[in-house]
Amino acid sequence: MLGQLRRIVQDVAQEPVLQNALAGLVSSVKQALATECCSVYLADYEQQHFMLMATDGLNPDAIGNIAIGFSEGLIGWVGQREEPINLAKAHLHPRFKVTPEVSEDRFSAFLGCPIIHHRKVLGVLTIQQGADRVFNEDEESFLVTLGAQLASVLANAEMRQAVSETTAGHTQTGQLKGLPGAPGIAIGEAFVLEPANDFNAISLKRSEEPEKELAHFYRAVKITKAEFNRLAERMSGHLPPDALAIFDVYHQLLDAASLGREIEQQIAQGWCAKSALKRVVEKFARQFDDMDDPYLRERGTDIRDLGQRVLNNLLDTEQRKIKLPAKVVLVADNVTATMLAEVPREQLVAIVSLKGSVNSHAAIMARALGIPAVMGVDELPLLHWQSQRLIVDGYQGHILLSPVEAICAEYQRLISEDAALNARYLAEIALPSKTLCGAGFNLMVNSGLAIELETTEPQYTGGVGLYRTEFPFIMRSRFPTEQEQIELYRKVLENYPDKPVIMRTLDVGGDKALPYFSIMEENPFLGWRGIRLTLDHPEIFLVQIRAMLKANLALDNLHILLPMITDLAEVDESIRLIKQASFEVSDELAIDLPKPKIGVMIEVPSIMYQLPELARKVDFCSIGTNDLTQYLLAVDRNNPRVAGLYDAMHPAVLRALHQLAQQANGLQFPISVCGELAGEPAGVLLLAAMGYESFSMNSSNLAKIKWLLRRVEMSELALLLPEVLACPSAKQVRAHIQRFLEQKQLLSQLRA
Amino acid sequence: MLGQLRRIVQDVAQEPVLQNALAGLVSSVKQALATECCSVYLADYEQQHFMLMATDGLNPDAIGNIAIGFSEGLIGWVGQREEPINLAKAHLHPRFKVTPEVSEDRFSAFLGCPIIHHRKVLGVLTIQQGADRVFNEDEESFLVTLGAQLASVLANAEMRQAVSETTAGHTQTGQLKGLPGAPGIAIGEAFVLEPANDFNAISLKRSEEPEKELAHFYRAVKITKAEFNRLAERMSGHLPPDALAIFDVYHQLLDAASLGREIEQQIAQGWCAKSALKRVVEKFARQFDDMDDPYLRERGTDIRDLGQRVLNNLLDTEQRKIKLPAKVVLVADNVTATMLAEVPREQLVAIVSLKGSVNSHAAIMARALGIPAVMGVDELPLLHWQSQRLIVDGYQGHILLSPVEAICAEYQRLISEDAALNARYLAEIALPSKTLCGAGFNLMVNSGLAIELETTEPQYTGGVGLYRTEFPFIMRSRFPTEQEQIELYRKVLENYPDKPVIMRTLDVGGDKALPYFSIMEENPFLGWRGIRLTLDHPEIFLVQIRAMLKANLALDNLHILLPMITDLAEVDESIRLIKQASFEVSDELAIDLPKPKIGVMIEVPSIMYQLPELARKVDFCSIGTNDLTQYLLAVDRNNPRVAGLYDAMHPAVLRALHQLAQQANGLQFPISVCGELAGEPAGVLLLAAMGYESFSMNSSNLAKIKWLLRRVEMSELALLLPEVLACPSAKQVRAHIQRFLEQKQLLSQLRA
Repeated sequence: MLGQLRRIVQDVAQEPVLQNALAGLVSSVKQALATECCSVYLADYEQQHFMLMATDGLNPDAIGNIAIGFSEGLIGWVGQREEPINLAKAHLHPRFKVTPEVSEDRFSAFLGCPIIHHRKVLGVLTIQQGADRVFNEDEESFLVTLGAQLASVLANAEMRQAVSETTAGHTQTGQLKGLPGAPGIAIGEAFVLEPANDFNAISLKRSEEPEKELAHFYRAVKITKAEFNRLAERMSGHLPPDALAIFDVYHQLLDAASLGREIEQQIAQGWCAKSALKRVVEKFARQFDDMDDPYLRERGTDIRDLGQRVLNNLLDTEQRKIKLPAKVVLVADNVTATMLAEVPREQLVAIVSLKGSVNSHAAIMARALGIPAVMGVDELPLLHWQSQRLIVDGYQGHILLSPVEAICAEYQRLISEDAALNARYLAEIALPSKTLCGAGFNLMVNSGLAIELETTEPQYTGGVGLYRTEFPFIMRSRFPTEQEQIELYRKVLENYPDKPVIMRTLDVGGDKALPYFSIMEENPFLGWRGIRLTLDHPEIFLVQIRAMLKANLALDNLHILLPMITDLAEVDESIRLIKQASFEVSDELAIDLPKPKIGVMIEVPSIMYQLPELARKVDFCSIGTNDLTQYLLAVDRNNPRVAGLYDAMHPAVLRALHQLAQQANGLQFPISVCGELAGEPAGVLLLAAMGYESFSMNSSNLAKIKWLLRRVEMSELALLLPEVLACPSAKQVRAHIQRFLEQKQLLSQLRA
Repeated sequence: MLGQLRRIVQDVAQEPVLQNALAGLVSSVKQALATECCSVYLADYEQQHFMLMATDGLNPDAIGNIAIGFSEGLIGWVGQREEPINLAKAHLHPRFKVTPEVSEDRFSAFLGCPIIHHRKVLGVLTIQQGADRVFNEDEESFLVTLGAQLASVLANAEMRQAVSETTAGHTQTGQLKGLPGAPGIAIGEAFVLEPANDFNAISLKRSEEPEKELAHFYRAVKITKAEFNRLAERMSGHLPPDALAIFDVYHQLLDAASLGREIEQQIAQGWCAKSALKRVVEKFARQFDDMDDPYLRERGTDIRDLGQRVLNNLLDTEQRKIKLPAKVVLVADNVTATMLAEVPREQLVAIVSLKGSVNSHAAIMARALGIPAVMGVDELPLLHWQSQRLIVDGYQGHILLSPVEAICAEYQRLISEDAALNARYLAEIALPSKTLCGAGFNLMVNSGLAIELETTEPQYTGGVGLYRTEFPFIMRSRFPTEQEQIELYRKVLENYPDKPVIMRTLDVGGDKALPYFSIMEENPFLGWRGIRLTLDHPEIFLVQIRAMLKANLALDNLHILLPMITDLAEVDESIRLIKQASFEVSDELAIDLPKPKIGVMIEVPSIMYQLPELARKVDFCSIGTNDLTQYLLAVDRNNPRVAGLYDAMHPAVLRALHQLAQQANGLQFPISVCGELAGEPAGVLLLAAMGYESFSMNSSNLAKIKWLLRRVEMSELALLLPEVLACPSAKQVRAHIQRFLEQKQLLSQLRA
């Protein structure tokens, strides 16, 4: 039974044309349940009806022609009840509606089951038969299970269909939904980068031009061989001659007599160069994998390494063929930091990452750069997008494919308005961050992606509220050395003389992986990350602290922030290691070191219950609202299935933040907010009302937040707060603040 | 660089003999860094010294003979500082210690790096060279990265080594550490079940007896063919003849001319039957996978299905050869419910699951059965254990392999004491659950694994505090029908007449997967689980509610509990669907239905901040302390890397529970605790002190908890509570309660 179900669902998923997939589906179900008729109806929400899309048993001419209203007939009833309905004598049922076009007179037994995806009825699956049969519980259960399994496949198929129709040259504007990754709107041309380093991501494709593919392959082989020569030369002083022999082996493998010839043959058979390479490399590598001798087995890895290099060069020459457009929308399966580096900053207008999410690095970088980004757009045939015009709406998380001119003009107007608003905010950047009634706030920036990206001059900020140290770790192929770290940290500290720079110790794990230190976990967000990892590896933590302390010499503006603190024992252990590093550095350089302030991130809920003890141990704390929200709501916001539940404006989160502010202020324990909530207009107003006075945010938001704070009074925020805290849902919270901003005539000036 | 590192680490990981792995390591590092000497020292914590384990450059005779005290020399210094140490002139350093045996006179440059696993220094890796060189920052960084990567590999290798020495017939008792899965101690014989349904888990093995393997294979083929005949017969009425033809194809494939012959050849070449089958099936399936034609590609799946069936029959006959011992310790890679079913209850004394964890079903079932279990014992050569004598200590999570007689006797004494204590608790099972001062408590049972497993008679309980409905879903290959569910639920409700039975709606996702509804997520614990999934699939939720309502007819003891509620909107939507189902059933049967009470699980932290609103919407709530702890501490307790942080006695968790009790009591909102904390002596005392009066626990704990509550006074618990709440760590909390129990002379009676 399970096998049959799996087979049917797989068939539907693998058939690219929706119509064909459904036709296959109904005949498979008919056969599996040995019934006389199976049909599928899909919901059309614009027309408010179900359309017969496929049938094996009803009149085939009715396909695409019979529409049944959402409140009509048995099909409509299944949709309304969202439950299977099993009837022995369907025609006697009060909800039965006579539809002569489908010729169902001979059927009496009816079993209809809804296909539901994320609470939305996508369609109805039915089986029917004559009076000789009543469908039993097993058959009902089969259909329910099938319906549940089909739901996500169909939802995907419908989207896929919509896109391919759009990209196939239809004149309609295609719209795709994703997650908002970074706010803003941009219009540009898609520049699709395929992942350069993964054979698995290469889907097999045929080519009509074998000569071109061959030339393409030869060029890549030539470049690869040249690389080997360079590598061999560079190594020749350091490696014994027998180790250098590996390069000769690589040369031989690439030659016509070996792998090379097989690849040529595959190209001659009509495969594109990449596909041919993939097929041959995987075949050979597998053969080696199967060998018993460990030495020979290891050669499988060599073949893959070699294939990798050729593949990189193939993709490289392929991409060079595409001219970088003037306005680049960078599109990739998973946008990485290195991909971003391939596009000059002034040409990059937006980012679309099919796999990433609001918390992945591409999104974080996009927000830091102040360019819009849309993430998690589901799997779609990537290369179809190449060079298409796109509108990226980072506010809504929408993408418009090949938009018609009128739509472009409308969005262009929005973009201009956005720019005008930004100019208005920037006009006040040098003025103090004070409310109308004179309450002052400390606005700091989040930093650490790359110092050049900062768009706000240090003098207009209160310093760096969160410096993320993970980038130098992620961008390398090994842990950075103490000296490398000193130089980086020194630059940042020097950039903000006399202002605090709060450096967070290495915060990897979760969704941030080091390429040379992989961690496989079931639930990485509840796993080995942040301080949990660095306390387990003091050799890494100590080197980082030493580098920070040395960079701080004669500047004395370093603050150290500890991420993912769950437990007071972790605080004690961290302080002990910081003291050890301090003692060592002081001993090594024979000078007295300035003692940096130490703080703790509030992101794991448990630490909120231990604030009094924490206040006695460290100098300050800083709330990471993103992770805190994630843990309080038990939602991975990168997961599209549940991302809708994630909202930092959730009443539970706001109530927790309110309690935190009251408690910290009561303890006179310095507290600030460095999560994204602080950079949102609605968020910062509530935080200010709760009693927070220090905020750290992306540089691109600072001017807007300052502009906003300068237009409100604490007394009105004090009235707003209890109303908002009484709201039962995030939606109502947002609506409430929106009304407040509207009344103050600020709303239209905050968002185009 | 990354490639080199990866290669070195892989080599170490793949070499089964630790000594050889280390020898390979030092020569690879020496070559990679083109240095004159590389050595590795491992820490011996009993002897408090580092032992030279491998060297390429020092005197090889010193291997295994040179020990350097933890506070001696440069090696000791690296270990103490837990940091790399890089010296140009090592011999001039005050910590340098002359060790003539290693012949290191010609070396002057020294770079030593610690290998640290989970805060513990496992060893020191050094490179050395003459006066011509000073090791640079890059080399230091290479060694640090290598050390970090090696740490977990070495930790694993050491454990592996220890086990294989034990099982190789040494007389010493081997000890293995895992996670405590279910409390108790047992002595028995290992009965190792290999996972029956996964080719990936079959590791290739050779056999010396090809004739036996061949006979083995033929027998399995014969059984498989017989199965096909039976299947074909059963289907012949329902399937068209061309569909039946598939069975003929299977027969042909199994015949000597096809797959069969290849398998015979592989066996003749010395492979065991399973390995031969795996090799051939995977080879053919892959060939089909590579085909362009979708129909032919699909045949790869057929071959795998076929191989699967033969494999199941192979394993079956293999296992039949092993006689089930009188006292079975069931050992498997991942113990499943079906595996448990293979051992008669009276013979099963303990469970060891290499992969599972404290929250996986095997552990939950073990706790329900009241037999000890140890989970997550790391990957070890499973079959080595077959028929070995084992002591399983489910309190500590330890396993003793082939224990010597004296140790067995000692553990036997503990087991007898445990049994005597249990008898003492059971003697009071019929007495009221009241403290010495007369405060009464409602003690209910957690249930839902299988009704026969309950060890406490319904009359001695307050009903079922948590009935888990997922088992009928997990054990099937499709969603259970309404009728199937009605029968199951009816049995439970009838078993507790006039007592409440709190049925939780389907709670899958997270670590509980349905075989026919797979969900792939990065962080399943923060994903689509519990009510999130069922509200997205109302067709599943509605059928379950209808079944519950129908089962409740004329009994009226059903309560409905909603899992994973995060948001009030989910409560509203659930109530709406329950009303709809109720209306439909009432309409269908034309009677008035009793209205069940509705409650909400408190396990997602957010809902704790919304208790007043929740109290207005539903009738009761129940705290799931396991998941609540997991989210408050942001720890996946199944993850061995961080499981040490998980503790339901963590001060933060206790403070949260205390606040919850106060708030719920203030609102007169009925609240109970159904997580494992309620079944722990220390836990239940604290919960009682906080003001909780209703607890649900595994049946096997109920007698003990009742016995304990009958021996305390509320006034002494009231004094205990503030002291405990002031503790800064879970460790101190536990120590504090332990002291209290000791003073009351209860401790020795609670645990042997």
